[in-house]
Amino acid sequence: MSADALVVFTPSGRRGRFPLGTSLLAAARALGVDLDSVCGGRGLCGRCQVAVADGIFAKHAITSADDHVSAAGESEALTAARRRVPAGRRLGCQAFLLGDVVVDVPPEAQVHRQVVRKNAAERAIAVDPVVRLAYVEAPEPLLEAAVSDLGRLRAALAHEWGLADLSCDPQSLVALQPALRAEGGAVTAAVREGRHIVAVWPGLVERAYGLAVDIGSTTVAAHLTDLADGEVLAAAGAMNPQIRFGEDLMSRVSYAMLNPGGAAEMTASVREAVDLLAGDVAAEAGVDLDRIVEAVVVGNPVMHHLYLGLDPTPLGVAPFTPAADEALSLPARELGLHLNPGAQVYLLPCIAGHVGADAAAVALAEAPHLGDEVTLMVDVGTNAEILLGNRRRLLAASSPTGPAFEGAQITSGQRAAPGAIERVRIDRESFEPRFKVIGSALWSDEPGFAGETRRSGVTGICGSGIIEAIAELFLAGLISAEGVIDGGKAARTGRLEADGRTFSFRLFDGPPPILITQNDVRAIQLAKGALYAGARLLMDRLGVETVDRIALAGAFGSHIDPVYAMALGLIPDCDPAKVVSAGNAAGTGARIALVNRAARAEVEALVKQVEKVETAVELSFQAHFVEAMALPHKSAPYPHLSKVVALPPRGTPSSLNSGRRRRSR
Amino acid sequence: MSADALVVFTPSGRRGRFPLGTSLLAAARALGVDLDSVCGGRGLCGRCQVAVADGIFAKHAITSADDHVSAAGESEALTAARRRVPAGRRLGCQAFLLGDVVVDVPPEAQVHRQVVRKNAAERAIAVDPVVRLAYVEAPEPLLEAAVSDLGRLRAALAHEWGLADLSCDPQSLVALQPALRAEGGAVTAAVREGRHIVAVWPGLVERAYGLAVDIGSTTVAAHLTDLADGEVLAAAGAMNPQIRFGEDLMSRVSYAMLNPGGAAEMTASVREAVDLLAGDVAAEAGVDLDRIVEAVVVGNPVMHHLYLGLDPTPLGVAPFTPAADEALSLPARELGLHLNPGAQVYLLPCIAGHVGADAAAVALAEAPHLGDEVTLMVDVGTNAEILLGNRRRLLAASSPTGPAFEGAQITSGQRAAPGAIERVRIDRESFEPRFKVIGSALWSDEPGFAGETRRSGVTGICGSGIIEAIAELFLAGLISAEGVIDGGKAARTGRLEADGRTFSFRLFDGPPPILITQNDVRAIQLAKGALYAGARLLMDRLGVETVDRIALAGAFGSHIDPVYAMALGLIPDCDPAKVVSAGNAAGTGARIALVNRAARAEVEALVKQVEKVETAVELSFQAHFVEAMALPHKSAPYPHLSKVVALPPRGTPSSLNSGRRRRSR
Repeated sequence: MSADALVVFTPSGRRGRFPLGTSLLAAARALGVDLDSVCGGRGLCGRCQVAVADGIFAKHAITSADDHVSAAGESEALTAARRRVPAGRRLGCQAFLLGDVVVDVPPEAQVHRQVVRKNAAERAIAVDPVVRLAYVEAPEPLLEAAVSDLGRLRAALAHEWGLADLSCDPQSLVALQPALRAEGGAVTAAVREGRHIVAVWPGLVERAYGLAVDIGSTTVAAHLTDLADGEVLAAAGAMNPQIRFGEDLMSRVSYAMLNPGGAAEMTASVREAVDLLAGDVAAEAGVDLDRIVEAVVVGNPVMHHLYLGLDPTPLGVAPFTPAADEALSLPARELGLHLNPGAQVYLLPCIAGHVGADAAAVALAEAPHLGDEVTLMVDVGTNAEILLGNRRRLLAASSPTGPAFEGAQITSGQRAAPGAIERVRIDRESFEPRFKVIGSALWSDEPGFAGETRRSGVTGICGSGIIEAIAELFLAGLISAEGVIDGGKAARTGRLEADGRTFSFRLFDGPPPILITQNDVRAIQLAKGALYAGARLLMDRLGVETVDRIALAGAFGSHIDPVYAMALGLIPDCDPAKVVSAGNAAGTGARIALVNRAARAEVEALVKQVEKVETAVELSFQAHFVEAMALPHKSAPYPHLSKVVALPPRGTPSSLNSGRRRRSR
Repeated sequence: MSADALVVFTPSGRRGRFPLGTSLLAAARALGVDLDSVCGGRGLCGRCQVAVADGIFAKHAITSADDHVSAAGESEALTAARRRVPAGRRLGCQAFLLGDVVVDVPPEAQVHRQVVRKNAAERAIAVDPVVRLAYVEAPEPLLEAAVSDLGRLRAALAHEWGLADLSCDPQSLVALQPALRAEGGAVTAAVREGRHIVAVWPGLVERAYGLAVDIGSTTVAAHLTDLADGEVLAAAGAMNPQIRFGEDLMSRVSYAMLNPGGAAEMTASVREAVDLLAGDVAAEAGVDLDRIVEAVVVGNPVMHHLYLGLDPTPLGVAPFTPAADEALSLPARELGLHLNPGAQVYLLPCIAGHVGADAAAVALAEAPHLGDEVTLMVDVGTNAEILLGNRRRLLAASSPTGPAFEGAQITSGQRAAPGAIERVRIDRESFEPRFKVIGSALWSDEPGFAGETRRSGVTGICGSGIIEAIAELFLAGLISAEGVIDGGKAARTGRLEADGRTFSFRLFDGPPPILITQNDVRAIQLAKGALYAGARLLMDRLGVETVDRIALAGAFGSHIDPVYAMALGLIPDCDPAKVVSAGNAAGTGARIALVNRAARAEVEALVKQVEKVETAVELSFQAHFVEAMALPHKSAPYPHLSKVVALPPRGTPSSLNSGRRRRSR
């Protein structure tokens, strides 16, 4: 019998011969097999689980058996019990070669593991750790061979983990000193990108955490994630406290312009909100803030600048120049974020002055650059951020939609909050409306509605509500393709009210009465015309007449019904089944960048490849805009839409402006 | 006539042919000639001065003449007047080739210039800028070609200065935004190490400054330096406010050990002191703190750790392990130092747990590693830091001298301050002493002494005073070679006072009376024995019997008379002319590291090469120590010393212990 044995690892198929007595973990490392470990082979962490196959393997031409590795000892049994290692599994570091074996590495023991996606629309998050934990037992310092604390930690990391030339944030030295003395030199180091020591804790630490933050104009959302497996442990959201300085982005930029120190106030308030959220998610998950060593932050350019303490006003005027658009890494402590003192914050790159790190995160999550489908991604706010393309080419633009979609500049408009109308249906014959409000599952014509809404009342109409209302009015024939509320129908319903020269539609009798006015229709037409024109401009550039897939991002995107978005002509025609809400896509993108090192390089490269199109300087934008004012569009066909809803006959403005004409006489 | 011309630059001798019309600055850059410029060739800064030679140059075989370059225009004349450009000089960027020329680059127009040293003992400081200024005119941002502020600054720096791939501290973006908008894109960037943008100011900025700080246990000293030429513009010193936590290093370490939060208190106090000093020197020089972009800090290991916010207690117990001993760079703002927001602080490496960044700075200033002379460098404090060697080999050790040299544990000892005795002479016949006190230029037996010292009084004796006193007592025969105050001489002088079994020498009648007691002599013997033994241990290791040169560093070193240091046997024998005070050497080393990039690499490499010798584990140290207790030494010869002073005859302890013996009977 030879003094070595063959080891074959599955699923990688890597194989090699090793001396008898070699541990399976050592063999895996020598072969470059992806087998996890935190404790460095001391049988403590239970991460290096493997299954030794039993039987004769024709493919590998070896006989593998349980007794071809050493039996589990007492300490392995203890660890297996404590770590809940499934039966039949061995710890790779405690199983030593006695003969030829086939060893399977289960997915959860792989460092670069694929996380099961929770819903089909989400891109599966692969883990490619940005921060890895490495447990070492640093030698005691000796008088004879003086070496610094950092020196002996470095030596141990190089010796046990092959991590050479590590740098260390001077702030992390503060924790290093007591950590090395607490348990006789046994410490766990958090190593970022294989290059930097960011944190050191005494003893064996098996989990380190990351924070993904999406700073929206209205809400701030945070997810606490296990950096080793990408699992979300806690999530929390809060209103963006900057709202008191202005509801929408432009009013915040104005606040900064008009008030000295205004930007600093907004910076302080959003930083505090993020810091509080970090505390909330950590408390919810029962995780010490000191164990959070990495954060990823995304946001639109204004949020991005304000969080960094930069002046947002150049983003509010042409040419909308950001201070920096590249990805940035900086210490969390410099952003008032109280995580581990060595924690770093990674901010995704911005695509352009109007297309932010949130759009970059959406692109990372939706991954249009990895497929052949021509995908249109739209994030609607005061400015719509628009991305279009596929693996061959990606284009980006922003379009000045204004705040109408957010319920601003709408007569009965309000922010999406309990009491706001969010769904609307109008009977095609009687023209009687029914609706749903946020906070109630019932339609307004269902029994119990009044009871369910007693507390909130019916207070106004939010962005998705106004879109459905106008689309339904159009589909019911109460608004013409040109966007005129048809006073000629006043004879058939008491809900059309004359309002000077125009008509309004009374959606709810009140109190307060909720009206859709002619001005509201015009505001939505302007907004949707701008959005459509931006998308169309990119389609022209890309040379396509249709898109294969549409992703509607942001809170707005998650509430809007694709059919109504098309009926209104907000987006180009598309198979409704291929219009997806990517409501959480920016947050998903942030989480991907949090746990996947390669994804950072991917999004940084992606952003550089994106061709930026500036709508304001494109002559064709105005032409597209004018055409797109009509419902759903003056000339673009909507074949998919026609299959699911009956569009009013085109070009038969039976009573166009009749109301106005009659009134004006 | 050809369409190009030959240009030869002196003193470099670089030469090349260029098309007629090429500016001399452009030619210099193309040839890699070291010619300074901040404004990038716009004729504004006046830095690129050259002299065009007149005549026929056999060596270069060309005819050079004034009219071989274009005449100075009006704008050059204006700049020349404003910048006080000497007559006969041209601005290289405004002088264009018309024919063959020899062009001399004067020293002050070279980037890597040699600064004239102010005194012969000091190492000349060469300038090799760590931070360079680069003026650019960044293009206006265009709607059509959106680019971030950082992007257009980077593009301009790459285009005009060849500085590619620059990183930028996110904190510096805050200043970048308004700077780029103040003067239409004209800004000056401070670029650190050719890689990082640390600061940006509007318009043309011609000077940036650096701060060199030496944190001593007793005093903190700061020098403000022009980073372009190394010139010191202002200097200031202050008491180290940590003194209220303990006079010497060990009592501060004890304070940290015994008081929770004590280290943090000391950190805050020294950081504040450094910040205040920065304000002082900036105010004195009329320099805006915002223009200070780099600082270098040196200090002994305890000061180094406390300034960084690290726990100093491991430095107080064997094995004296520092948290980190390598050179560190970190943002000034993280150390509470309010310079430019992007300013960085460079801390020199420590050599070992007891041999600090100050010793590394002394080594950099004294440069033993560049010469053949075997140099012994000694920095005396609670622990003496000792370096020995030359270009071939360098050794370091620290020796536990205790605080006696600082006046502690000495009966009448005090810190060096007005009123403290610092010089002592004792008449060889009458045994009458005379002395000088700090704050007065007169000897105590000179007329007017009482008047000059009325204010301070004569309050005690400082470190250099006690050394001279004991050395003089020894040379006068009042103390034996074994260190016993000879009571047998009491018959010849009333200044010998019985004090139990031993005698004291009354140096000053008082009030208060100032005595040198037998215990004082013992304390100094212990201290000097430890120091000598440490030096001797290194000499053994290096295999030398004598040293060629001795540098005494620190405040102590600058006040001690080499002859007395030898008479006491504090240092080995050496030609007194080769025993130099390197009082300021740590500060000089800090200034070198401040303005010379290569010096940082030099000291980092040097520190790695130094062999650390731990006195506590060397058996021979104790033997050396016992031998070195005698005055000047039990067995080591002092040939150089014997030439300048008459040593008492050895081995004739006429009245050894006679005083004690008489008393004890």
